[in-house]
Amino acid sequence: MVDTAVKPATPDSDTPAQRAVAAAASGEPTAPGASSAPAAPASVDVEWLGRYLLGTWADARLQARATTARPELQRIEGQTLADHRQRVFEQLHLLVEEGSVNRAFPKRLGGHDDHGGNIAGFEELVIADPSLQIKSGVQWGLFGAAVLHLGTEYHHDTFLPAIMSLEVPGAFAMTETGHGSDVAAIGTTATYDPETEQFVIDTPFRGAWKDYLGNAAVHGTAAVLFAQLITQGVNHGVHAFYVPIRDVDGAFLPGVGGEDDGLKGGLNGIDNGRLHFTDVRVPRRNLLNRYGDVTPAGEYSSPIESPGRRFFTMLGTLVQGRVSLDGASTAAAKIALTIAITYGSQRRQFTAASETNEEVLLDYQKHQSRLLPLLATTYAASFSHEVLLTTFDGVFSGAHDSDTDRQDLETLAAALKPLSTWHALDTLQEAREACGGAGFLAENRLTSLRADLDVYATFEGDNHVLLQLVAKRLLTDYSRKFAKADVGVLARYAVTQAAGRAVDGAGLRRLAQNVSDRGSLARSVGQLRSSAVQRALLTDRVETMVAQVAGRLRPANKASKKRAAELFNQNQNAMIDAARAHAELLQWEAFTDALGDIADPGTKTVMTWLRDLFGLGLIEKHAAWYLINGRLSPTRAQAVSAYIERLTSRLRPHALDLVTAFGYGPEHVRAPIASGAEAERQNEARDYYAAQRASGTAPVEEKAVKKSKR
Amino acid sequence: MVDTAVKPATPDSDTPAQRAVAAAASGEPTAPGASSAPAAPASVDVEWLGRYLLGTWADARLQARATTARPELQRIEGQTLADHRQRVFEQLHLLVEEGSVNRAFPKRLGGHDDHGGNIAGFEELVIADPSLQIKSGVQWGLFGAAVLHLGTEYHHDTFLPAIMSLEVPGAFAMTETGHGSDVAAIGTTATYDPETEQFVIDTPFRGAWKDYLGNAAVHGTAAVLFAQLITQGVNHGVHAFYVPIRDVDGAFLPGVGGEDDGLKGGLNGIDNGRLHFTDVRVPRRNLLNRYGDVTPAGEYSSPIESPGRRFFTMLGTLVQGRVSLDGASTAAAKIALTIAITYGSQRRQFTAASETNEEVLLDYQKHQSRLLPLLATTYAASFSHEVLLTTFDGVFSGAHDSDTDRQDLETLAAALKPLSTWHALDTLQEAREACGGAGFLAENRLTSLRADLDVYATFEGDNHVLLQLVAKRLLTDYSRKFAKADVGVLARYAVTQAAGRAVDGAGLRRLAQNVSDRGSLARSVGQLRSSAVQRALLTDRVETMVAQVAGRLRPANKASKKRAAELFNQNQNAMIDAARAHAELLQWEAFTDALGDIADPGTKTVMTWLRDLFGLGLIEKHAAWYLINGRLSPTRAQAVSAYIERLTSRLRPHALDLVTAFGYGPEHVRAPIASGAEAERQNEARDYYAAQRASGTAPVEEKAVKKSKR
Repeated sequence: MVDTAVKPATPDSDTPAQRAVAAAASGEPTAPGASSAPAAPASVDVEWLGRYLLGTWADARLQARATTARPELQRIEGQTLADHRQRVFEQLHLLVEEGSVNRAFPKRLGGHDDHGGNIAGFEELVIADPSLQIKSGVQWGLFGAAVLHLGTEYHHDTFLPAIMSLEVPGAFAMTETGHGSDVAAIGTTATYDPETEQFVIDTPFRGAWKDYLGNAAVHGTAAVLFAQLITQGVNHGVHAFYVPIRDVDGAFLPGVGGEDDGLKGGLNGIDNGRLHFTDVRVPRRNLLNRYGDVTPAGEYSSPIESPGRRFFTMLGTLVQGRVSLDGASTAAAKIALTIAITYGSQRRQFTAASETNEEVLLDYQKHQSRLLPLLATTYAASFSHEVLLTTFDGVFSGAHDSDTDRQDLETLAAALKPLSTWHALDTLQEAREACGGAGFLAENRLTSLRADLDVYATFEGDNHVLLQLVAKRLLTDYSRKFAKADVGVLARYAVTQAAGRAVDGAGLRRLAQNVSDRGSLARSVGQLRSSAVQRALLTDRVETMVAQVAGRLRPANKASKKRAAELFNQNQNAMIDAARAHAELLQWEAFTDALGDIADPGTKTVMTWLRDLFGLGLIEKHAAWYLINGRLSPTRAQAVSAYIERLTSRLRPHALDLVTAFGYGPEHVRAPIASGAEAERQNEARDYYAAQRASGTAPVEEKAVKKSKR
Repeated sequence: MVDTAVKPATPDSDTPAQRAVAAAASGEPTAPGASSAPAAPASVDVEWLGRYLLGTWADARLQARATTARPELQRIEGQTLADHRQRVFEQLHLLVEEGSVNRAFPKRLGGHDDHGGNIAGFEELVIADPSLQIKSGVQWGLFGAAVLHLGTEYHHDTFLPAIMSLEVPGAFAMTETGHGSDVAAIGTTATYDPETEQFVIDTPFRGAWKDYLGNAAVHGTAAVLFAQLITQGVNHGVHAFYVPIRDVDGAFLPGVGGEDDGLKGGLNGIDNGRLHFTDVRVPRRNLLNRYGDVTPAGEYSSPIESPGRRFFTMLGTLVQGRVSLDGASTAAAKIALTIAITYGSQRRQFTAASETNEEVLLDYQKHQSRLLPLLATTYAASFSHEVLLTTFDGVFSGAHDSDTDRQDLETLAAALKPLSTWHALDTLQEAREACGGAGFLAENRLTSLRADLDVYATFEGDNHVLLQLVAKRLLTDYSRKFAKADVGVLARYAVTQAAGRAVDGAGLRRLAQNVSDRGSLARSVGQLRSSAVQRALLTDRVETMVAQVAGRLRPANKASKKRAAELFNQNQNAMIDAARAHAELLQWEAFTDALGDIADPGTKTVMTWLRDLFGLGLIEKHAAWYLINGRLSPTRAQAVSAYIERLTSRLRPHALDLVTAFGYGPEHVRAPIASGAEAERQNEARDYYAAQRASGTAPVEEKAVKKSKR
């Protein structure tokens, strides 16, 4: 991409307050724990930062980026529904040929038992086409992963090879028209018939139709189907079954029916559809029986005593979808900012300081304020995704897979996925608007990425429901006594683990470390730069919000079911806000930890500014809370905003480097407005007018004529 | 639509603070100026409210709604680009046949000189298909309106009839690839050649290509083209010309060329394209010469002395596009909320208070918090749109069309259009997420409405640029001395009227009316309900922000061009924030004025709550500002949030009535999830399980079996 960014104007006189802030920011230590950034010239080592951002599974990412650079793997805008679906299906076959789909499957079946690398590779596919990323996810991350994690050796040997090779495209048949978030209440039944040693799958009413299933409308020939397992007159809860749905000619098998979901707002490269079952019989052994089994006589058994814990353990094995979405969303935000910041560094509109030269968009305060905070958040999301990926790999590789580790993984995924998916949508929309009419053309990627990613906010766990799951975990950790009260009343409401188990919060951040006298926090402007001060402010808010909610919910312990439900409902907003605060802290911690890995002083200076922009941005967003709760004085709150403005303009000259470090070249970005074409047009116009003036052929402005006549 | 909304649970015990608030809200006057709402049972007279919402031009709206109920006028999801474009073009012909496109044209040519009715009718078309609304707007609201308002009798007689009949589809060729917001800097030239008495139209470089023009890619045979008028070596600035572009066979005329913009993120029923001109000659009389003319010899003359004022006067006649977008955006938000609130009143997920009955979504606190404030804002936008429409009609009918009236109209349009377009996008997105996977299906309207309305935030005036125009007006009104300094430096930067003219702010709201002692504002919770208190809080913020910016900008009066530009840039965010605060106040005033028209006590009670939710929502959004500036104490700020929560749950039972009053029936909403189908599915499931329990055939829950064994 042609870099013709204009060197930005620097204000030539600051107020005394601004100079003081600048002095503080330049490195004079002003408070205990303040980051003592040396006065290094601010400059990003783009190559180093780019390698660092690739993370632990750099090879898998780079391999995936080579894949997504191939035109045959990329999205063609404007295809018909049928053509787009067919293209993506063929692309999945290309991935199989490439050998890049089996990382997470067992070695003995031809896989690599590589969990982190698997996710890192698949999430990058969003850059080629989100439909490709998601359909791959359905096939290998949901359908295949369910067979792997919920089935046992028989199922691995019998079903996995054809899943891995794509010989059997399959659907993950969990969601129903009537039940998405509350999986435990799905209506499909699988009733055991000991006489035939079969399970009879049945869809008892329209709301129990399986719905929104990728691969169900066209390509899928089998499904992992979730249903209420009933045997000997007892319902043992939701279990998973391997159910063939189509024959080799593509016709539904007897008793199986369905519909096409039709055109969607996005992700139209995936054939989402509905399925229903009328007395469909499958062999007893088709029950994926890792966590629950039925003997030929029909007797149920399970290694997990509690039905609630059994259910959540099964669901927990499918966390990789959320991990993958966290990474894909963040990658999409990176593409959006690469486009918008590149264009904004070339696009000009309105003269201001000059009579003839128009201002570059990114030199405007408002344009900087729209894009640079999103850039800071994207870096935070990128670093926290790496933490999530590492945690995920630790659990799924078996290196760190205690119950506690698994729950911490689940909570971390439930905290980060909502933030990164919403952030991607915000970023894509802001980037689109910042690119004006050009941003609205499909060729410039922003509108179709946004349309595709829209559903990321509500599938694989609705964002609000996930945050409630996080809140429930925070409350459980806060009060073990509270946890005992929640069986029955809360079990379905908050969708999380049953109580009765001590949780020591080891997987969560230790709170309020390294804080000196909290009463004197942020006493001077300089202290706002301090990691300790930012940490304390963010942590304090999480702690306080959790404690406040816990206090308001305490009466629920002894209340009637109805009264307890009312209490929860009156505190639902507060719970979700507390969870979000916790997730934001996790992102901030990940960013701060990353700073510790930066050796180059120039890069560290810029990245510290970016981290400060992120952290102070959170504090500014929640300034009302801090003011109401006496954690910030009005003067300090104003200082936060003033410092954010200075950080933003200080970061502007580094914006292009910061998006270049994301590592997505023109073969990935594929947006004409980010190709350098804008700079060429600007230069051509500039040269044209300059030549006119030089040759004396320019017309005279009317107002100049009038001036001269006065 | 089937109404099976569940009667929501009412909390059976409030805290003392909550009971106090309830007492205050129930009508005990607690402060001077507090609204003394009688203790009428809250109930919306839907029929009355529906008629009231239709506004002054009710007939035009109802006629348009009959039109948009016809399937042949409606959008078909998933058409190809070519088919969608053709369909919308044919729909424009249907509108012509119906006789509903000519309201704003002169009577002597077959129109009705009806300006308010014209806009009211056209904006409703968004309900059928936003592409239909916008392509109609291009043809009659831009192309035709430019001929009408910038041309004179010759042009009306010569060109308007074929425009009105659609015999000549045309483009509004103003925007260029290189210049959208800064129209004054466009590159296309029209140089007068006295020997041939022609203007020579030329596109000097790629950035001067006309771009994003509706009708340019396929259907248009002519254009109103904006170009720099050059005669006798002097550039007199941007003027408009009638330029034929295609012959009857659809081929470009000599010297005219172009491109198709291709697929866009939305509005694909419109054939947007690019045009360029190489020595294209048009007769002298093709100059639309109301505000500037050229004699056959080439001598320029204009009724407006100042080139700057002349330019803005010309642009000002095209304000109707912004007026129309304000209405269309608000209509789209109404559809979104009709869908989401209807679905949310039927959809159930998770049991909480009951063992068997799942909770209705709209009974959840978070669901209410997501949708009801948007509903309040939509009502505010609807009432303020009516004010805008009335103001517009006053100016364009000639009843109130002084310079001051025109500028007030321009400022009002520039203030409201950004808020309503962004609001529509926020509402459509929130509605989509609130409807989960079903909301993502194209058949449920939300995703395609959102995709189509995306560009409304940046065309017909980029929202951020429009808010700067408003800010400049506020600053000009604030300081007449300030105004004198802005010629040259600010003229291009802030895109507004040149200075030197006293502005008395008659068109703006008088500030701080009816305020008693501002220091004692909001001393008690009850006072928050008071209109006077809300007005004073909102107004105070606008005044203070404008004064603060004016103060920081004062040095610009005596500074160098460069320094003045820096000062403006450092205050760009503050200017835009002040403008937004002003626009929000305008919306609040319109809502409050509407309350004065409500006679029915029950309706007035509910609508007052809704207005309070809107006003207090603004105050809560800006709580940090109020706290920092000492206008609210922490206690009062918390009271605002607590009262908002109570208002939200109090309004929940009226949500369906409030969307029904919008007047869009199933023929307009056309979303299966709002058709009653969800309620039917819920009922079927409920009946199924009830029948199972009644007949004793229900399987026993495993945990119940275990309980009984203990």
